[in-house]
Amino acid sequence: MTFLADILSTVFERRYRFRTSDKTDGRPLEALVADLIGATGEVSGVTMARQILSRYATLDDDDKRAFFRHLAEDLTISAPAVRAALETYEKGQSKASYQAFMEAVEPPRQELIRRLNQVPDATRSLVRMREDLLRLGRDDDALQALDMDFRHLFGSWFNRGFLVLRPISWESPAQLLEKIIAYEAVHAIDSWDDLRRRLEPADRRCFAFLHPAMPDEPLIFVEVALTRGVPGSIQDLLAGNRDMIDAERADTAVFYSISNCQEGLAGISFGNSLIKQVVTDLSIELPGLKTFVTLSPIPGLVRKLKKDGRSYDPADDERMRSLAANYLLTAKREDGLPLDPVARFHLGNGAKIHQVHARADISEKGMQQSAGVMVNYLYDLAKVAQNHERFASSHTIAASSEIRSLSASAEEALV
Amino acid sequence: MTFLADILSTVFERRYRFRTSDKTDGRPLEALVADLIGATGEVSGVTMARQILSRYATLDDDDKRAFFRHLAEDLTISAPAVRAALETYEKGQSKASYQAFMEAVEPPRQELIRRLNQVPDATRSLVRMREDLLRLGRDDDALQALDMDFRHLFGSWFNRGFLVLRPISWESPAQLLEKIIAYEAVHAIDSWDDLRRRLEPADRRCFAFLHPAMPDEPLIFVEVALTRGVPGSIQDLLAGNRDMIDAERADTAVFYSISNCQEGLAGISFGNSLIKQVVTDLSIELPGLKTFVTLSPIPGLVRKLKKDGRSYDPADDERMRSLAANYLLTAKREDGLPLDPVARFHLGNGAKIHQVHARADISEKGMQQSAGVMVNYLYDLAKVAQNHERFASSHTIAASSEIRSLSASAEEALV
Amino acid sequence: MTFLADILSTVFERRYRFRTSDKTDGRPLEALVADLIGATGEVSGVTMARQILSRYATLDDDDKRAFFRHLAEDLTISAPAVRAALETYEKGQSKASYQAFMEAVEPPRQELIRRLNQVPDATRSLVRMREDLLRLGRDDDALQALDMDFRHLFGSWFNRGFLVLRPISWESPAQLLEKIIAYEAVHAIDSWDDLRRRLEPADRRCFAFLHPAMPDEPLIFVEVALTRGVPGSIQDLLAGNRDMIDAERADTAVFYSISNCQEGLAGISFGNSLIKQVVTDLSIELPGLKTFVTLSPIPGLVRKLKKDGRSYDPADDERMRSLAANYLLTAKREDGLPLDPVARFHLGNGAKIHQVHARADISEKGMQQSAGVMVNYLYDLAKVAQNHERFASSHTIAASSEIRSLSASAEEALV
Amino acid sequence: MTFLADILSTVFERRYRFRTSDKTDGRPLEALVADLIGATGEVSGVTMARQILSRYATLDDDDKRAFFRHLAEDLTISAPAVRAALETYEKGQSKASYQAFMEAVEPPRQELIRRLNQVPDATRSLVRMREDLLRLGRDDDALQALDMDFRHLFGSWFNRGFLVLRPISWESPAQLLEKIIAYEAVHAIDSWDDLRRRLEPADRRCFAFLHPAMPDEPLIFVEVALTRGVPGSIQDLLAGNRDMIDAERADTAVFYSISNCQEGLAGISFGNSLIKQVVTDLSIELPGLKTFVTLSPIPGLVRKLKKDGRSYDPADDERMRSLAANYLLTAKREDGLPLDPVARFHLGNGAKIHQVHARADISEKGMQQSAGVMVNYLYDLAKVAQNHERFASSHTIAASSEIRSLSASAEEALV
Repeated sequence: MTFLADILSTVFERRYRFRTSDKTDGRPLEALVADLIGATGEVSGVTMARQILSRYATLDDDDKRAFFRHLAEDLTISAPAVRAALETYEKGQSKASYQAFMEAVEPPRQELIRRLNQVPDATRSLVRMREDLLRLGRDDDALQALDMDFRHLFGSWFNRGFLVLRPISWESPAQLLEKIIAYEAVHAIDSWDDLRRRLEPADRRCFAFLHPAMPDEPLIFVEVALTRGVPGSIQDLLAGNRDMIDAERADTAVFYSISNCQEGLAGISFGNSLIKQVVTDLSIELPGLKTFVTLSPIPGLVRKLKKDGRSYDPADDERMRSLAANYLLTAKREDGLPLDPVARFHLGNGAKIHQVHARADISEKGMQQSAGVMVNYLYDLAKVAQNHERFASSHTIAASSEIRSLSASAEEALV
Repeated sequence: MTFLADILSTVFERRYRFRTSDKTDGRPLEALVADLIGATGEVSGVTMARQILSRYATLDDDDKRAFFRHLAEDLTISAPAVRAALETYEKGQSKASYQAFMEAVEPPRQELIRRLNQVPDATRSLVRMREDLLRLGRDDDALQALDMDFRHLFGSWFNRGFLVLRPISWESPAQLLEKIIAYEAVHAIDSWDDLRRRLEPADRRCFAFLHPAMPDEPLIFVEVALTRGVPGSIQDLLAGNRDMIDAERADTAVFYSISNCQEGLAGISFGNSLIKQVVTDLSIELPGLKTFVTLSPIPGLVRKLKKDGRSYDPADDERMRSLAANYLLTAKREDGLPLDPVARFHLGNGAKIHQVHARADISEKGMQQSAGVMVNYLYDLAKVAQNHERFASSHTIAASSEIRSLSASAEEALV
Repeated sequence: MTFLADILSTVFERRYRFRTSDKTDGRPLEALVADLIGATGEVSGVTMARQILSRYATLDDDDKRAFFRHLAEDLTISAPAVRAALETYEKGQSKASYQAFMEAVEPPRQELIRRLNQVPDATRSLVRMREDLLRLGRDDDALQALDMDFRHLFGSWFNRGFLVLRPISWESPAQLLEKIIAYEAVHAIDSWDDLRRRLEPADRRCFAFLHPAMPDEPLIFVEVALTRGVPGSIQDLLAGNRDMIDAERADTAVFYSISNCQEGLAGISFGNSLIKQVVTDLSIELPGLKTFVTLSPIPGLVRKLKKDGRSYDPADDERMRSLAANYLLTAKREDGLPLDPVARFHLGNGAKIHQVHARADISEKGMQQSAGVMVNYLYDLAKVAQNHERFASSHTIAASSEIRSLSASAEEALV
Repeated sequence: MTFLADILSTVFERRYRFRTSDKTDGRPLEALVADLIGATGEVSGVTMARQILSRYATLDDDDKRAFFRHLAEDLTISAPAVRAALETYEKGQSKASYQAFMEAVEPPRQELIRRLNQVPDATRSLVRMREDLLRLGRDDDALQALDMDFRHLFGSWFNRGFLVLRPISWESPAQLLEKIIAYEAVHAIDSWDDLRRRLEPADRRCFAFLHPAMPDEPLIFVEVALTRGVPGSIQDLLAGNRDMIDAERADTAVFYSISNCQEGLAGISFGNSLIKQVVTDLSIELPGLKTFVTLSPIPGLVRKLKKDGRSYDPADDERMRSLAANYLLTAKREDGLPLDPVARFHLGNGAKIHQVHARADISEKGMQQSAGVMVNYLYDLAKVAQNHERFASSHTIAASSEIRSLSASAEEALV
């Protein structure tokens, strides 16, 4: 879909680019914004929207901050107007009074963002704009409130029902692939050759969620290895000289890297849909696959061991595994959820802690974060709903009996 | 784009269809709705959403009305909660207080609709659902208020930036073409042969807006004839035995039919974007095109003449043209806008009344509505913004001098 | 593939169409042909080729016959030249002597046809040209010899390796579908609605072979019904009110219609590849399918019964089945192959006579040709090679034991 | 087209790969070949063809040579059979006698190659096979004769009418782009970044001819720079820090690199079609383009100057230009055609020598071959046919007056 979409949209953009004169008329950005919000139709709206986006793209951080501040302070709700509308509504609930209420409670900046989005390719620009906003608004309550409006609209626009799952392969457009290289956040891709090793072999797969309005921008992607048996080492899994197997012979699919791509979409969650969809698709394509696991880092392990003053030796396999299992099962935040962010994500999705492996990630980062230990989270589609439910309601963690006994032995060791 | 999209989505749907058991668990729809709104994640959400949509599809009108009433009455805002959130917000404007306010003012049914949309192909179902709502809620204030929420979300989802303009041709999928036949609202398409006559010849074009989430459903489409000179008869334009011309020889593009396709998207406007985009695209593809006009009906002419007690004779060309020009220029609604709905649409887009023709539509409907007269609205991209602005601000109607003098002669005739 | 191919080729053609002036220069067609064969390169070749094809398209039958006669008589081999080249080759077999031999034995008209094919879309025109040739050359030895050259080139161009198997569905381009309607040769398609009934339901499929150089022209297509059990009536199979089933529930795929589309490709066989490829593809898509059969006419049955003076009663089921089985097993041509052309085709492909059904085709044509009897040929991929081999080498017909005993009872009845 | 084709063909292959057991049955390759030629139909033919191709792929050079020798010697024509068929034909020219003649003059190896091509993806394998044959048969008359058969068939299969012109861009599949990197023969592409610099900027284009049976293999491609004015330095043209321009502002398209990709297609010419088609397409897309030139090497210049004992100084611009112009206009082979191979190619296509530039290619190779001089050949579509004709018939070289006077001054210098 995207390839053709690209063609079409490229043609589209190009025409557009050279059709519109886009003479910005020198008026202040605030004036353009006021015009756009006040515009009675799309007739001049698109032209104004384009001008605002072009102008925005040239701003430095101070001017961007000023622009955001204008939206945050001047295009916000009016409390008296809300109160008045609410009172009218309470007196008589009708279409008219409800409509008036809806209008009063929605700040004009939401309509502004929607109108900016009329311009071809504006969605991408607006995601970038929110990236700026998040960066510039970190300690600024007004800008953070403004961000709630962006987030509200993006939640609607990037609804799961609008996303398209696409396999990414060595046949995908180079334009898309260079973004996979850039966005890989877990195990860095060094070069095009490295990328090829992750995409081209018969026992490798990659899947991404895309949005039709920015079809060459992956939103999130997952890299998958097809193996026989559950692997216990990321270096073995990615080794250049490993033995490849026919996809049909694999019994296990390993999700070894999941990367969010768009900082401007922070807080809009796609990850659990992605994994479950990929599990579904792969199990249809390759009926031989029986086990779906991750091979995941344990980013908080060493920090916690140090904080607790527990000694550890990366070379003592069984001890490391016990410590890791214990950490995953027992280390909690104040709200009762697991301390480890990766564990929170997968357990929240309904996965189960399946196995831990020592000396599984001997990279510098792997040794620093988790003394080399990695963990497999298991996705059993028949059980994810139940696991999720129990995790959500009572923070109960699904784990294999081996993980439980490993954890128990770590407890005993403490005594 | 759609063809490949279709392939992908078909594959997708099919898998989906046979993967999910979708055992509806017998609980009342209200209980499922409560569960879906209360769901902590997408894990079980998609399953519940699918169940609700499946169950909804089997309801009769009474049960649908009850379902809508539940949404309207039980999943609405709580005025006290809004008031409390507003007060907190007024006391201290922070991210937290703003977020609490946003949550209080949004009725839970909006989140429900968003969550229903997670299911593949749900967008289409939700558009159909609103079609039901509009039909069943005509005289029901609560349901009309509920409709405001659908409309609010659809306005966001079907934002111009997400629509794709596609040429529709005899090479388009039959699945799409049958909808063109079904939805044509102005000059009915009798058969596949009739459709072919409007799509296949070198001097005919058709364009539609599509949305990626329902790629085989046109939202609105326009049919175009390429001609030499501005035509003055719809029957001549559509005659089976007319002389065809090479597209390159045409100097005029005639928009002779514009049809909205989705009743469930009523009030979400695409029409003016469509025409302007098509004008832009055609003028690039065919630089020989100099004039872009409609050949439009005047649906309210006869009714108005009768109401005013003015005599008319369809065979008296000049008199009919005068009466029509006068009607278009002077007949107004209470709000000062033109009485004629087609005139309101095109003048609101920034078009100009260019020419009127007697005996231009001699079909039964044409004679009944307008005594055979039709009108050309002219789209001159260099002037639409200005025309639109003057129409919007002061209801000033752009018209050619010939139209003005025709109208004047009708005034004189009155004296 | 074709949809995008269409887009590209359409763009391509269109440009082409309006770029080339194609002023035919009034010279006789023979002169143009001589120029094209003599042309030193493609530079002017394409222009001349286009002129020849355009000119040919305007000829009446007499002129076409004269054109073919020119190719047949003037652009043929020279026996003395062949003999000379052969002698040189015999004296010393070298690259040069072999090349000279190859040039001598190939008539110049073959090179002419190849050069004509340089023009965009020429392949289609050349297939049409051979259609004319076959029609006009029926009783003309020279034109039939000329046809051997067309057939030789087409055999190379339409090699199995260049064909693309495509599912045809209700989502296919209308342009392609109207050809399915036109070309259906076995059970006529009455209307677009009738076509939809054969394509859209979940238990119907259609597949065609296409060639990339004429992607909107099916070469041959097969219509498939997915059923539970082997059906014994074409009217039941096609009934508008039949019960549809989910494709996944089907255990049998029924090939109920196979149609060659291009008369100009007569003698270039695709049929057996098509069925075997479709069997392979369907058994992957739908693992539940266990049986692949045809539901085929027996076009020569009644004629043979009449010739043999055997009485028959279409309402006497068992007797009709015996007669049909006996006919299929024993009626032979002089060369020892089955008399029935459909039987020859399927048995030659390695199929097996599986079952016969009385009152299976009660249409007028079905009653006339076969007194209502139809036959299932079974495609068992594990056995087609062996069946084919035995049929090819010793004319042994594969048949089920029931068919054999039915046939035997017809023999006894004769005694 | 290719992207979707890739998808389809990939799916296709994959299925195929895992469907067919492909147990090679241990018989000698010759026996398999005999079986395939003798096969009565496609039923077992495809299986045998696949076995032969698989087996061939494992052969070493000696065995390949033996295989080719078998084809060359045992599957060749029989002179007595040809003579007999010729005599029968002379006695009575009929369809039958002509068919018998055609069969006699075609060596069985041609039918073998056609049958091998039935296997999916076989075309690619056969092109590779011919690559082997050309390499192994250099000094072997029998193998060179065999090559004539390959060339004959490939000439038919890779006929211009079957080729598809495709723009290659940064949005093309990586799988295709890596071949562009590998095949670039004129100005090497160092890395993916270098490739991107040639594809992504708005003032760069690349086009390739593809064949539908091997859609991810470019046959030939051309790289184009869009410029203002005719450039005189390849280093400037490719400089990383050059000023880019909007494509719409360009007045000149420069073909600065043309690379043939398939050694196995040697002697099958696509180059002139490619350039002319690209000129046509670009002049439609960008009406501002007025001049279409190459920026070409002069590979034989230095060798000739040395041979003629003429002194030259790369830094003496005017002198170098004179020498180059003189070389291009006057240095001839025995057959009267230009000595320089690049000149032969472009002049044969109907181009004209437009301009020469000193210090235009200061790379090591450029200095060695042509002392830095490069040449622009001009493609003026209105004149290529006439230029070509005069070049073909009388070896007349089209050149600008400046080139002629530069050349003349070199002559004078000689005196």
